[in-house]
Amino acid sequence: MATTPDTTLFREAFRNHPAGLAVITAAGPSGPVGLTASSVSSVSADPPALMFSLSGTSTAPVLATAETVLVHLMNSEQIEMVRAFATPGTTRFTEEEDWEFLASGEPLLRAAPWALRCVVTDRVAVGASQVLIATVLDVRSHAGAGDPLVYHHRTFHRLGRHSRIP
Amino acid sequence: MATTPDTTLFREAFRNHPAGLAVITAAGPSGPVGLTASSVSSVSADPPALMFSLSGTSTAPVLATAETVLVHLMNSEQIEMVRAFATPGTTRFTEEEDWEFLASGEPLLRAAPWALRCVVTDRVAVGASQVLIATVLDVRSHAGAGDPLVYHHRTFHRLGRHSRIP
Repeated sequence: MATTPDTTLFREAFRNHPAGLAVITAAGPSGPVGLTASSVSSVSADPPALMFSLSGTSTAPVLATAETVLVHLMNSEQIEMVRAFATPGTTRFTEEEDWEFLASGEPLLRAAPWALRCVVTDRVAVGASQVLIATVLDVRSHAGAGDPLVYHHRTFHRLGRHSRIP
Repeated sequence: MATTPDTTLFREAFRNHPAGLAVITAAGPSGPVGLTASSVSSVSADPPALMFSLSGTSTAPVLATAETVLVHLMNSEQIEMVRAFATPGTTRFTEEEDWEFLASGEPLLRAAPWALRCVVTDRVAVGASQVLIATVLDVRSHAGAGDPLVYHHRTFHRLGRHSRIP
């Protein structure tokens, strides 16, 4: 048992903590923005609310100040999109990504199995990062054939019967 | 593509969103308290900080007011403990759970691969739930043989070569 306040062990602990994946988009002043997040979690069902955190990437400041965001919960069919939105400098919102602007302005990635349109209610700064809490205005579901997608230690995994613990 | 503001779809969306599992403990006025959470996520590495949410269970109010908490990130070897701390009414902190009070007061579940002692810095109320943000004071790691543990649609999964996407 080792004890340390240093950040190396902290990073290692969370690299080893599995998480689902989402792509969060918003309308920015210079066009649509989006990034991949592994921190999206439900907070409350009444009102329906969720939270996520943003670190200091180039896209994050635009998302952090957006009044409304679109949170797409992704599965294994969207792995290329998840990778693209996780990689700085990639071209996003390409034609292959099959997206459209909603009437309310946010860019929708049509293939996402779930898209939750949210209004941000709380922003808490933590160092160079931000925690955002948002109330869900509407939920769009889109039938698809993918498996649940998990990120762990810089690797993607799919869930199914093969991974189930009886 | 269906659109609805109702909470049924919201709950379904997050039931289908995979998550890692943690047991969060604290020293309560009437003894040690703890509960299983699927909402723990890293927020920042500098300072090392994390977030989680608590809903209105019987244990949650004690945890929600604790000044410091111990966040145990769990793997497949701790599945029985994760189940026990997720089930209302179960006896917790039994001898089999192999725990001890830290000098600082929080109950440590010794088998946990990671235990992060945190001071809570922010509490945000959302309906009957709370979002807690906490700075990590120290990280304890404990070598073990378990696999990464994921919760999805009320089922536990283990990650490994069998689940990896190339």
